[in-house]
Amino acid sequence: MIVDVSKKILIVGLGLLGGSYARVLKRFGFHISAITKDQSSIDYAINENLIDQGSTELDEKIIGEADLVIFALYPHVFVEWIEKNQHLLKSGSLITDVTGVKGSIVYKIQDMLRDDVEFIAAHPMAGREVSGVENSSDKIFAGANYIVTPTEKNTPDAIQNCMELGRLLGFSNVATLSPEEHDEMIGFLSQLTHCIAVTLMTCNDKEHMENFTGDSFRDLTRIARINDLMWSELFVANKEALLDQMNLFMDKFIELKEMLENEDIEGMRKMMRYSTERRALFDKK
Amino acid sequence: MIVDVSKKILIVGLGLLGGSYARVLKRFGFHISAITKDQSSIDYAINENLIDQGSTELDEKIIGEADLVIFALYPHVFVEWIEKNQHLLKSGSLITDVTGVKGSIVYKIQDMLRDDVEFIAAHPMAGREVSGVENSSDKIFAGANYIVTPTEKNTPDAIQNCMELGRLLGFSNVATLSPEEHDEMIGFLSQLTHCIAVTLMTCNDKEHMENFTGDSFRDLTRIARINDLMWSELFVANKEALLDQMNLFMDKFIELKEMLENEDIEGMRKMMRYSTERRALFDKK
Repeated sequence: MIVDVSKKILIVGLGLLGGSYARVLKRFGFHISAITKDQSSIDYAINENLIDQGSTELDEKIIGEADLVIFALYPHVFVEWIEKNQHLLKSGSLITDVTGVKGSIVYKIQDMLRDDVEFIAAHPMAGREVSGVENSSDKIFAGANYIVTPTEKNTPDAIQNCMELGRLLGFSNVATLSPEEHDEMIGFLSQLTHCIAVTLMTCNDKEHMENFTGDSFRDLTRIARINDLMWSELFVANKEALLDQMNLFMDKFIELKEMLENEDIEGMRKMMRYSTERRALFDKK
Repeated sequence: MIVDVSKKILIVGLGLLGGSYARVLKRFGFHISAITKDQSSIDYAINENLIDQGSTELDEKIIGEADLVIFALYPHVFVEWIEKNQHLLKSGSLITDVTGVKGSIVYKIQDMLRDDVEFIAAHPMAGREVSGVENSSDKIFAGANYIVTPTEKNTPDAIQNCMELGRLLGFSNVATLSPEEHDEMIGFLSQLTHCIAVTLMTCNDKEHMENFTGDSFRDLTRIARINDLMWSELFVANKEALLDQMNLFMDKFIELKEMLENEDIEGMRKMMRYSTERRALFDKK
């Protein structure tokens, strides 16, 4: 379906990610519509030729003609949208998303969705520290991961089409994981790192530390500048998986602290050597 | 004293830092000697015109003629060197160091040192992820901090000379702190960050995580590739200050974990907003 550029795509939520999707897909020749809350986003996107048409209303014609609908909304807004407006979707259409958590969203949407519309979930692991369609870019997908999280309700066709979408967008790695595997992975690699950065940034408010800051501290706190509305929602939406990861981290941190208390140099050196060895796996390829 | 290039400088320990010191100071025209354990380091440094002479032995002439001696050794090796060899130092000479911890070193050295030699401690907060004189560079000091940690035993002259050395080397920020302030600051900004990186890198050994790694995780674990011999010694040498910082971090981490358990969105958002606000202080100027 995807490579057939006669198909019509609708993006709901024209922010940084939605705008970046539009930017790439429009170039391929697809007909792109957008529904978003601010008229200024629509105006910008039309001026920049990112979309063909857009509305700040629930435009029945725009929604009803879309073959593929991409939801780029906050998790709870996405769920509410489907609850209230799914009757407007075209029969046979495919819907997908960009939500950063899966277990708490995917089953809920699939359970409530009409039988003649299929939802295949995806998480484009790309972003910037700025937001809004004005900051959208077709370069944020290169080098990044696109994870499709199918369930037993999904058809092979939908899975293939969704993976093809990730490749069209320019992601370097397109893969599938179960919603549970996804949430564990994202809990560790992304959410736990944000918890750590925020904690480090707020645990010691002694003044003038910034005068002595080096690269280590700056690296560990780059993501401590954080969108509180989005991340608090994502944390709660992945609560159990994130708590598991926080506990793993805390147990290991206490282990290190006890080795230091006991001046167990050999124990610390062993942990540091394992750390050094494992870090090599994570170098950019 | 420092700007008088007729003065002779001896560097004990010709590794990455000692070599980088030599590289800059030789250019100013100082007579530079080195004592280090490997002949290959001496050979390299003479070939590259970093030093005038060097020895792998305790050369009495080289040591006895030096007006300024810079010790670039591991903390316990530095202490042992002074214990055994201080009788070789020139009367009236000034000695300084590059040690990354201060409270456990400075008073010990000053207490045991001859009355006609002065030790003024300094911590050049610069480095690379590689070691050895072959990797020395005159560019690692730009943008970095040079901290002098005087005690009541130090003379104003020695403090001024040591700060002047930091400026000559090209450090962007030359400041003084008490040994205790230094250790608290370094415990937080540098040692705690290394503890966190090593913990994060070793707390979850699930396979294939690296396939999904993004920049956040890479940033937080860059320093998880760590020199285990050096850092375990530095941790123990700053044990009390580092344990204080680890406890501050852990208390705050547990606070965040409890907010997540209770789905206290407002509490998490408040912490994230404070984090965002504080992080702005630490941006590169």
